[in-house]
Amino acid sequence: MNKPQLRIGLIGSGFMGKTHIFGFATAARVFDLPVRIELECIADATPELARAAMSRYGFRRHADSWEELAADPGIDVLDITAPNALHRPMAIAGLAAGKHIYCEKPLAVDVTEATEMTKAAELAGVKTQVGFNYLANPMFRLAKKLISEGRIGEIRSFRGIHAEDYMADRAAPWSWRHDSRGGGATADLGSHIIATAEYLIGPIIGVCGDMHTAIQERRTSEGSEVRVNVDDVGRAFLRFENGASGSIEANWMASGQKMQHAFEIYGSDGAITFDQNRLNELRLHETGTDGRTEGFRTLLAGPEHAPYGEFCVAPGHQLGYNDLKAIEIRDFIEAIAEERSEPFNFAAGLRIQRLVEAIKDSTMRARWTDFT
Amino acid sequence: MNKPQLRIGLIGSGFMGKTHIFGFATAARVFDLPVRIELECIADATPELARAAMSRYGFRRHADSWEELAADPGIDVLDITAPNALHRPMAIAGLAAGKHIYCEKPLAVDVTEATEMTKAAELAGVKTQVGFNYLANPMFRLAKKLISEGRIGEIRSFRGIHAEDYMADRAAPWSWRHDSRGGGATADLGSHIIATAEYLIGPIIGVCGDMHTAIQERRTSEGSEVRVNVDDVGRAFLRFENGASGSIEANWMASGQKMQHAFEIYGSDGAITFDQNRLNELRLHETGTDGRTEGFRTLLAGPEHAPYGEFCVAPGHQLGYNDLKAIEIRDFIEAIAEERSEPFNFAAGLRIQRLVEAIKDSTMRARWTDFT
Amino acid sequence: MNKPQLRIGLIGSGFMGKTHIFGFATAARVFDLPVRIELECIADATPELARAAMSRYGFRRHADSWEELAADPGIDVLDITAPNALHRPMAIAGLAAGKHIYCEKPLAVDVTEATEMTKAAELAGVKTQVGFNYLANPMFRLAKKLISEGRIGEIRSFRGIHAEDYMADRAAPWSWRHDSRGGGATADLGSHIIATAEYLIGPIIGVCGDMHTAIQERRTSEGSEVRVNVDDVGRAFLRFENGASGSIEANWMASGQKMQHAFEIYGSDGAITFDQNRLNELRLHETGTDGRTEGFRTLLAGPEHAPYGEFCVAPGHQLGYNDLKAIEIRDFIEAIAEERSEPFNFAAGLRIQRLVEAIKDSTMRARWTDFT
Amino acid sequence: MNKPQLRIGLIGSGFMGKTHIFGFATAARVFDLPVRIELECIADATPELARAAMSRYGFRRHADSWEELAADPGIDVLDITAPNALHRPMAIAGLAAGKHIYCEKPLAVDVTEATEMTKAAELAGVKTQVGFNYLANPMFRLAKKLISEGRIGEIRSFRGIHAEDYMADRAAPWSWRHDSRGGGATADLGSHIIATAEYLIGPIIGVCGDMHTAIQERRTSEGSEVRVNVDDVGRAFLRFENGASGSIEANWMASGQKMQHAFEIYGSDGAITFDQNRLNELRLHETGTDGRTEGFRTLLAGPEHAPYGEFCVAPGHQLGYNDLKAIEIRDFIEAIAEERSEPFNFAAGLRIQRLVEAIKDSTMRARWTDFT
Repeated sequence: MNKPQLRIGLIGSGFMGKTHIFGFATAARVFDLPVRIELECIADATPELARAAMSRYGFRRHADSWEELAADPGIDVLDITAPNALHRPMAIAGLAAGKHIYCEKPLAVDVTEATEMTKAAELAGVKTQVGFNYLANPMFRLAKKLISEGRIGEIRSFRGIHAEDYMADRAAPWSWRHDSRGGGATADLGSHIIATAEYLIGPIIGVCGDMHTAIQERRTSEGSEVRVNVDDVGRAFLRFENGASGSIEANWMASGQKMQHAFEIYGSDGAITFDQNRLNELRLHETGTDGRTEGFRTLLAGPEHAPYGEFCVAPGHQLGYNDLKAIEIRDFIEAIAEERSEPFNFAAGLRIQRLVEAIKDSTMRARWTDFT
Repeated sequence: MNKPQLRIGLIGSGFMGKTHIFGFATAARVFDLPVRIELECIADATPELARAAMSRYGFRRHADSWEELAADPGIDVLDITAPNALHRPMAIAGLAAGKHIYCEKPLAVDVTEATEMTKAAELAGVKTQVGFNYLANPMFRLAKKLISEGRIGEIRSFRGIHAEDYMADRAAPWSWRHDSRGGGATADLGSHIIATAEYLIGPIIGVCGDMHTAIQERRTSEGSEVRVNVDDVGRAFLRFENGASGSIEANWMASGQKMQHAFEIYGSDGAITFDQNRLNELRLHETGTDGRTEGFRTLLAGPEHAPYGEFCVAPGHQLGYNDLKAIEIRDFIEAIAEERSEPFNFAAGLRIQRLVEAIKDSTMRARWTDFT
Repeated sequence: MNKPQLRIGLIGSGFMGKTHIFGFATAARVFDLPVRIELECIADATPELARAAMSRYGFRRHADSWEELAADPGIDVLDITAPNALHRPMAIAGLAAGKHIYCEKPLAVDVTEATEMTKAAELAGVKTQVGFNYLANPMFRLAKKLISEGRIGEIRSFRGIHAEDYMADRAAPWSWRHDSRGGGATADLGSHIIATAEYLIGPIIGVCGDMHTAIQERRTSEGSEVRVNVDDVGRAFLRFENGASGSIEANWMASGQKMQHAFEIYGSDGAITFDQNRLNELRLHETGTDGRTEGFRTLLAGPEHAPYGEFCVAPGHQLGYNDLKAIEIRDFIEAIAEERSEPFNFAAGLRIQRLVEAIKDSTMRARWTDFT
Repeated sequence: MNKPQLRIGLIGSGFMGKTHIFGFATAARVFDLPVRIELECIADATPELARAAMSRYGFRRHADSWEELAADPGIDVLDITAPNALHRPMAIAGLAAGKHIYCEKPLAVDVTEATEMTKAAELAGVKTQVGFNYLANPMFRLAKKLISEGRIGEIRSFRGIHAEDYMADRAAPWSWRHDSRGGGATADLGSHIIATAEYLIGPIIGVCGDMHTAIQERRTSEGSEVRVNVDDVGRAFLRFENGASGSIEANWMASGQKMQHAFEIYGSDGAITFDQNRLNELRLHETGTDGRTEGFRTLLAGPEHAPYGEFCVAPGHQLGYNDLKAIEIRDFIEAIAEERSEPFNFAAGLRIQRLVEAIKDSTMRARWTDFT
């Protein structure tokens, strides 16, 4: 118990705030971390909310404002789960105070902001992480490993989708997610599948975008009608540095789809497919010599797929979404403690942001956009 | 037994030729057709092959050449299953002799040829059909019916794929399918999913293409190396007349995929998905009011899905691919006998051809192409 | 075209009658049979029905009664698709006239009848076949082959189900299927899964039965109430000669199930599973050395799985139920023509009948019953 | 933060011990519990192990022996995750000291022990819980609710399976799981599916068992050969009080199966099926009036299925196995705090034990055994 402590200052206790809290709690037990995590202080939209969250979730203290928290000498990590538009000022303030920053995705509302944040992080010399949690799935790591081992040969094509249906209802009220500064299906959901594409296949060097606004007006919760400028569905063709081609689709009006973060990767000697709706499964095809018994194999997460075994010693018991967040947190904490490079830092988040913007730009110009 | 007879003259007894023969045999028994089908005469690459096929498959006669067959006064329908490059001369000859023409897809190797054929057919005043057999599936007709009934609301987006793996092997020899006149994944496979898209969603009014040649050289069966000019994978963004947007992918190097003719259709109030690998199943989601029990429903083909009941009175027994061909044949024969309009005639085939060419053209120019 | 002819005399043109007609038509085209099949003569419940079926399905002649057909010197095979209670007299008459007999399952309404028929067939020295069509599936043959090759090691346990829902509705009228002579879920559906069990695992040497009547009264179509004596669901534990143990369930009130003819076979080194609802798929697990990539593989029917390739040269195109019947017919015809032993003759049908009766007997006595 | 505390004393830090620790950590954050959980003290096989586990998992103290822990006045709950044979003495000791007891399943090695423990618990007047964690799944609760709402009508039949493959390998060493006192597939795995059966369908009133030992000798880790007396596969027919019939199978040598805790429930108007390999999914069929669009619906866990929403506000994100344990713990803690009756207490555990013994007994006598 004489490990050094790592004191977390969290901003926000909504959807993602809670996910982070649960992730810290799980990570602290499941993994033999190099530090002792302390849920030190929490800030929220109001001091009252912060106090309630402190008491509800077991933080030691609360802060009356995020500004107070960001400057708090008693925290080591500033964890940002506030709306996208606040990421930049919060991160800049935290970096100015020398904190490590853990920021929910997307990193910022645009490339300009994200670039500023990334530069500030480099100057500050701290560790940063952007929460692209799907990448923490052991089955993604297995997929990446199998590809790098050449199990499916030379990669030729990629098809990626991130579809949900939470904006399918025309009556769903206007929110900041519909604001052109950072909103839209491609920015919100497409960013995930772009991250997955690059994680598995490697750098993207060109995009051709196609974004559509199907529901062009929405009402605010107060009842006034607002013109929607962001995409309900965004698609892109992709060209990868390694020569493969591919496509993605981001869709937040895909009725009936709850979590279709799915991909299909085709290589010269096999294929790998995945759907987050069944996050413990990876499907692998290997072209072989006995045609009678070839077929896609369904691999089920188990102790052979680290760090599954830390959660459960028996196979087939299933990890959940919050477990993925715990793995993401473990990775960040190890990067901080061991001064290793972070798996998905601000520079990585900026890159995704730039790719989203390239797709937007390509859509506007109705042409391919090169990317470097 | 005093039905009029309909005498078939078939060219070719390879893959599709056999499928047609089986389809005629099945259609003749399963359906109470308005005519009696006679397998009258067959032509093949050589007179010897034709004679062997006649005897093997029970034709009354054989012809020494397709030219002879096309002009044969003893046949009513000329059925063309020869390589694509021969479709035009064969059809033109058959039309000149006043035959109804049943032609495998694609209609021709390019739009010029297909246009000529379509005009000739209109002049001849006969019935024509192009073999886009997937459309004959009762589950497609169910999907179309459900959409037109408004069961999934206003259609917003479409995602279509036709992927197989028969060209995944770099060592697969060069064939006419690799010839730029009519070959390539988009022409060969993409044409199917384009036909499906228009069948279900309606007219396409714009495309943006992306075609790639992954294996750029192949050897002929004689061993010489040939440069491949056609696409191994082709993608397109689609804009539909009804306002929906969508995409397709055609891929013949999708290792492990045998018959992924798949689509997902998202409407304002539900969704429909399908995969030809399980051709007797359609998945339907309807957005409702009891969130606890919403989900995609797997509909299994049965007598409620005409004409399944003609094949089998009990549900769940499964139709096969050759049964789909029999349905396609029934539709054509009824169009001939009842002087109704054909479900998928030369004009429809030409339209698909033009869409394939528009995708090619868009790829070359790296821009959207309008379509009318 | 100078093959000897094989003249079929068919009794019945209902569900199974049609399936046989379609099967003959398909078999005649798809396979290069040693004989020329002639649909010679048909009998039905009345002369009028027989005449109509003749004309509808292309038989050369019709008979006024099954007795007339059974004795007709112009037929070689008597094909029986009449209700179960008529199988015995029809088959006995046909055998007396020296016909080969093709009889739908179950062979008879009880073991006494089935024994008499089997003895008569042996005396007659003709070929017989009982229509257990699921066994004709290439994927069953693949399963059997993989087992015999030792691919899943020593067989340890079997789980078999045949569930449908056509009797789930309490209002479904009383029919001969509810008659204790030959009726009930175990006799009607269980017989199929018992046949599958023995086909794949080998002889059964002991059973312990459990049969239930859930809907104890049904109305006839005339409206009178009849006590139902047969089982709606039947189960049995099985002991196999090779040491494996297993179970089956037959259920005709399994709401929502259309064709759940399913099995799971576990061996020391792997497993095989199947569900007829997806008859073109077999799932295979092989225990290996790389735990990371182990899992059930979905094998999709293709040309590697004879005789699929006769129907279609490309994989993944799917066989249908009627195609299975065509394979069954091919097997019978080859047995006749080549004087080989039949795959599933009267003796085999009798054995299934005896197993059904053993399960009934075991249920009554509430004890295990040995079987030889 | 002024909630009363509930001090946990845990025995064991192996597979299930860790699962409990993770479950407490998660429950404490995810749920707004009426108490503050304190991981107070841990005991393990040796004092050294206990000290290491204390430090690794954040307990305040450790105990040198379980006896010391059971009597510790500083704990409120004794949590037992030791091997089965120790459950009785540990629970009796804890009860004697007035602790609430949380005991992993099975409750004991035989009915005699379990009865003693249950009586002692009743006398002590404390709360008890046995860890049948699958029952904590929100989708199980949904299934139970739908059944009680009559959504699938009158229940007619049940089919349950719990199959894994961890004993499929003949070389897997002999362990206490192979000891006839409490070991075997039916006791270890079958107990789970029996609990599920009664949870969903109601009381069982008769069983007929069939247990087999496929691998009759195993080596200890020291290398000596031991005769195995317990079952590798156990089956039972079930009769339920409500008139339904059913069956279960427990199999620990089902090669390739990792967590096939699966059931199918058929009612007069619908059906429900489930497989723990996909624990976030429930399949529901409702017989309706539009046959065209009937089919099994796949329900995906979401906020509509309490307490999913406590873990995540968005649907489709997936709960994991450890989350189920957290729900089980929440239920127990609420029962303690609110003096409500426990969902699955010692009396319930005893009942399962008695059912397992009835199946064994029935197998020995080769007859049905009544159960009350």
